[in-house]
Amino acid sequence: MPLLSIYHPVNAFSIEDKDAMAVKLTDIYARVMPRFYVNVLFHPVPEDCFYIGGVRRNNFVRITMDHIARAFPSEASSRRFIDMINQVIAPWVKDRGMDWEFHIDETPFHLWSVQGYYPPKQDTVDEKRWIAENRPSPRTHD
Amino acid sequence: MPLLSIYHPVNAFSIEDKDAMAVKLTDIYARVMPRFYVNVLFHPVPEDCFYIGGVRRNNFVRITMDHIARAFPSEASSRRFIDMINQVIAPWVKDRGMDWEFHIDETPFHLWSVQGYYPPKQDTVDEKRWIAENRPSPRTHD
Amino acid sequence: MPLLSIYHPVNAFSIEDKDAMAVKLTDIYARVMPRFYVNVLFHPVPEDCFYIGGVRRNNFVRITMDHIARAFPSEASSRRFIDMINQVIAPWVKDRGMDWEFHIDETPFHLWSVQGYYPPKQDTVDEKRWIAENRPSPRTHD
Repeated sequence: MPLLSIYHPVNAFSIEDKDAMAVKLTDIYARVMPRFYVNVLFHPVPEDCFYIGGVRRNNFVRITMDHIARAFPSEASSRRFIDMINQVIAPWVKDRGMDWEFHIDETPFHLWSVQGYYPPKQDTVDEKRWIAENRPSPRTHD
Repeated sequence: MPLLSIYHPVNAFSIEDKDAMAVKLTDIYARVMPRFYVNVLFHPVPEDCFYIGGVRRNNFVRITMDHIARAFPSEASSRRFIDMINQVIAPWVKDRGMDWEFHIDETPFHLWSVQGYYPPKQDTVDEKRWIAENRPSPRTHD
Repeated sequence: MPLLSIYHPVNAFSIEDKDAMAVKLTDIYARVMPRFYVNVLFHPVPEDCFYIGGVRRNNFVRITMDHIARAFPSEASSRRFIDMINQVIAPWVKDRGMDWEFHIDETPFHLWSVQGYYPPKQDTVDEKRWIAENRPSPRTHD
């Protein structure tokens, strides 16, 4: 779960930038779920492949987020989350003068498989163990 | 909103092709929403990475569209839209002998952030200003 | 439909691997739908673009699947399908010591266009012909 796909200009981020962004984004989710659930994929996009409003751009970052493990229980909770994402990415995006946009989709929990396992439900014994060990392991409960 | 991802053979489109396609696709949406909402990303896919029906293809275009700002109010309206997309891309795809396929997903409006803002609802004062100025700006209404 | 996007380390798969995986994955779907419906796209991801749990990885495969033509009628049916996918990809992923994860999203059937056509509904005369001929052709029924 979350699968974060970050589409960015080819030279926007150094490896150090990407390392730091991945950790900061992972930290947000890791408060409530196994750390290894967080997938961050960077996709460098050449300028002649990146159009906003019909115009080629080389200073725009577009992020998509597929959420699977958790659905927001309310709009208030989604706003807190979205505000936090905007804050966390600011040093690499806004503060460098780049424009940006992101959106989140929520996909079905039961259509998800990690390392051949069906991930445990929230707050179960199995999930607590996956969090503690930071790796998937055989389920001990349904 | 819309995020259009165009997966195409590596040498299918020139920069001029991409410029023109991006403008034509953006024009469709810009009738009813801010022009800068439209994100078009081209993804060149090498032949040994592109399989249709289990067969490697170098003459196929696959498009995905994430719609956020608007949901189709009826199947009739979605058909008009889909027919228009097929017509608009034809000069670069069908007329060049390439095969193609696309699908649209609709994702939650409130899980979307542009330049740190929550985009205004359809037909509001704020949206009209975003359309007129073709850029995001602080909301003046809830 | 289905659109399978396979994000993998740059050198994980040879062309022969990809040919074989694409065929095996297509075979699963082709039991119940036209073979040409199955789109498999491989996306090589450099190590410095691929983060799991905030850590750079060069031995992880992440697959996303957009299902359009069919929705699972029950959780039992989705489990049979997911178990089959895990089994089919094992020789190229698990058996080579790579970790992996995938998830499926189901998107609206009527927001889908193949070669300019609206694909026929399941088990119709038109779909049977599309299956038999393994190509799209004008609809003869609504």
